[in-house]
Amino acid sequence: MKPLASLIPLEEAKALVDRHVRPVERTEKVPLQSLLSRVLAEDIVSRIDVPPYDRSAMDGYAVRAVDTFQAGKFEPIELDCIGVVNAGDIPRMEIERGECAQISTGAMIPQGTDAVVMVENTERSGKKIQVYRSVPPGSNLSKRGEDIREGAVVLRKGELLTPSKVGVLAALGLAEVEVFVMPTVHVIPTGNEVSEVGRELRKGQVYDINSHTLASILRESGCVPVPHPVVEDTREVLASILAETQGGDMIVLSGGSSAGERDVLEQVVSSMGKVIFHGVQIKPGKPTIFGVIGSTPIFGMPGYPTACLTNGYVFLLPAARKMARLPPKRDIVGSFPLARKYAATLGRHQFLTVRVENGEAHPVFKESGAITSIAHADGWIEVPPNVDIVEKGTMVEVHFF
Amino acid sequence: MKPLASLIPLEEAKALVDRHVRPVERTEKVPLQSLLSRVLAEDIVSRIDVPPYDRSAMDGYAVRAVDTFQAGKFEPIELDCIGVVNAGDIPRMEIERGECAQISTGAMIPQGTDAVVMVENTERSGKKIQVYRSVPPGSNLSKRGEDIREGAVVLRKGELLTPSKVGVLAALGLAEVEVFVMPTVHVIPTGNEVSEVGRELRKGQVYDINSHTLASILRESGCVPVPHPVVEDTREVLASILAETQGGDMIVLSGGSSAGERDVLEQVVSSMGKVIFHGVQIKPGKPTIFGVIGSTPIFGMPGYPTACLTNGYVFLLPAARKMARLPPKRDIVGSFPLARKYAATLGRHQFLTVRVENGEAHPVFKESGAITSIAHADGWIEVPPNVDIVEKGTMVEVHFF
Repeated sequence: MKPLASLIPLEEAKALVDRHVRPVERTEKVPLQSLLSRVLAEDIVSRIDVPPYDRSAMDGYAVRAVDTFQAGKFEPIELDCIGVVNAGDIPRMEIERGECAQISTGAMIPQGTDAVVMVENTERSGKKIQVYRSVPPGSNLSKRGEDIREGAVVLRKGELLTPSKVGVLAALGLAEVEVFVMPTVHVIPTGNEVSEVGRELRKGQVYDINSHTLASILRESGCVPVPHPVVEDTREVLASILAETQGGDMIVLSGGSSAGERDVLEQVVSSMGKVIFHGVQIKPGKPTIFGVIGSTPIFGMPGYPTACLTNGYVFLLPAARKMARLPPKRDIVGSFPLARKYAATLGRHQFLTVRVENGEAHPVFKESGAITSIAHADGWIEVPPNVDIVEKGTMVEVHFF
Repeated sequence: MKPLASLIPLEEAKALVDRHVRPVERTEKVPLQSLLSRVLAEDIVSRIDVPPYDRSAMDGYAVRAVDTFQAGKFEPIELDCIGVVNAGDIPRMEIERGECAQISTGAMIPQGTDAVVMVENTERSGKKIQVYRSVPPGSNLSKRGEDIREGAVVLRKGELLTPSKVGVLAALGLAEVEVFVMPTVHVIPTGNEVSEVGRELRKGQVYDINSHTLASILRESGCVPVPHPVVEDTREVLASILAETQGGDMIVLSGGSSAGERDVLEQVVSSMGKVIFHGVQIKPGKPTIFGVIGSTPIFGMPGYPTACLTNGYVFLLPAARKMARLPPKRDIVGSFPLARKYAATLGRHQFLTVRVENGEAHPVFKESGAITSIAHADGWIEVPPNVDIVEKGTMVEVHFF
């Protein structure tokens, strides 16, 4: 039983995590329907021209532009409509001088025409079309390959597939593409007092909370959490589970609230690999362990649920996103006045859970062991280590969960 | 072939959609592992006290507080350590006056003790413990039920299950809870020129893009998109697919770029239910149809991919989230100077796709038929109907996809 020897500052701890986490390299083919939120592992080169044919951009009449040059608002010219081209049709007619064809948006331009007159600028009686506007060649149509040429690079390796980019892949007719795999993260609850959810609690036990919050954060960060049953925090058991899970991209141990348990984990990580830090100048979340075994990063999270949750957002989330090759999270932040005075702890960067209600940020943090500190929280605010008191009414930035 | 008769303003169209979309009422039991991002359909009442027993909040020694009252920084008192209580243990000893027990964070408080002295405030030699600080009763321990009492309502029906709230359910030992089902939305690509991805394009055809972007937006909005093969836009076919899909919570038709196709859809929806609006004062996305058949909302989206995409964000996303009972999306917005002048269209609310590069917002919108208008976009800006020109350098708000 001993207190932590020395704490490192938050920014240093973040930088150390970042330095030891590598983006995943493995790739896999995934079908179009499942590509949302995945990351491209190949440059996407178009195998087709887009549009694949000269097509009308409007509903109207396909014409020879030269025929319309004399047309005006009060002096229409007259053309013979010799057919109709709907979208999807292959037009068989050839348009001669003085002729036109009715055409739909998206339909193929018939032979002989080089422009489309919008229906709004025409008047029809039987086969005779009055055209009230002159159009230059190329008007209201898209040329084959005008948007994307066959062979062009349309999306790049590393791009995140948002709904619009999934649409782009569809436009190119790609039924599957190569993307990076979602990293596998082993989530291992530890602690002799910790029981699995679904079982009856024995005396002296509490339910495993942390592996569920951490797995949820990992899932939101492009990773695949691999759940494990609760393990005892003895040297032998921890060493064996760490050896077993080396195939994964990362390992997160989610319990260990006492100094004794943390020491055991520190010793085991030391003996199998390297402890990078143990103890950070933050509150809650001080007793955090980070290390590597081989190239696998390992987090030992504090056992208290609020500490574990904020650590999940502060350390694990950026690491998971980097590993999954997602761009850094665009934090959703809102500015609100603090609803009551908050007495901070000098010397530690603090994460205070808050609830936003009636336009104010209400601190809901009781203590890091309390579930109610997170049950009613919408997000958190940060209080730097050099701040003593945050007065009521101070504008604070709320990071939403 | 006729132009749209009358366009309604954007805000009116949004309000009409909102009025006709109802939150889903059906519920289902879902296991803890799959509850992330789901919405509670029941109040969560705790069946246990949390913590479930009096427990230590620190590593240290469980004492009778009264024994420490004379202790001070330079005048320790001495106690006999008669045992150890680790987390998960059921302590068998009873502590008498002058005695204490070593205790770990999270461990059960032994009989006779009413406070914990932190290890930092003690010194040990063999079984003798020097205590350098006096503690009042209740120090450094959490009483049973202090955080949550059995019978207390901890989360409410309608709450969205974020990682922290998933953790709260775990804390209460709930292996499954009742949540609202994810609404089912039929996504039906239409258009005679539209081919399914994965097939060889025939002459005059383009690939189906829109059903993939819309399905992606629906998936991100808590709904389950149900894909359909491309259907012809004839009265008979549309009527039959709309009749077949009435079991779903919403129907989105994703093609129909020409006035002819839109008219057919309008007629079919009119004959089976009611058209709420057809045509909105926006660009792109003007030819949008919204209606209801029975209580099922139906969108007829414009065929052009950019128009369909922005409509997906502007109309479909809020409707889907409301139906799924998700809170309105917290838009991620950034302010950037516009990289070049943009000439707008007076009288229509415009959505201009942009790419953010080197701290500037670059318009990438070419025309609503172009894939490159969306391939390189990070988000969009809005230009109100009364704006003619947006000058280079104007600060614009980018809504990120």
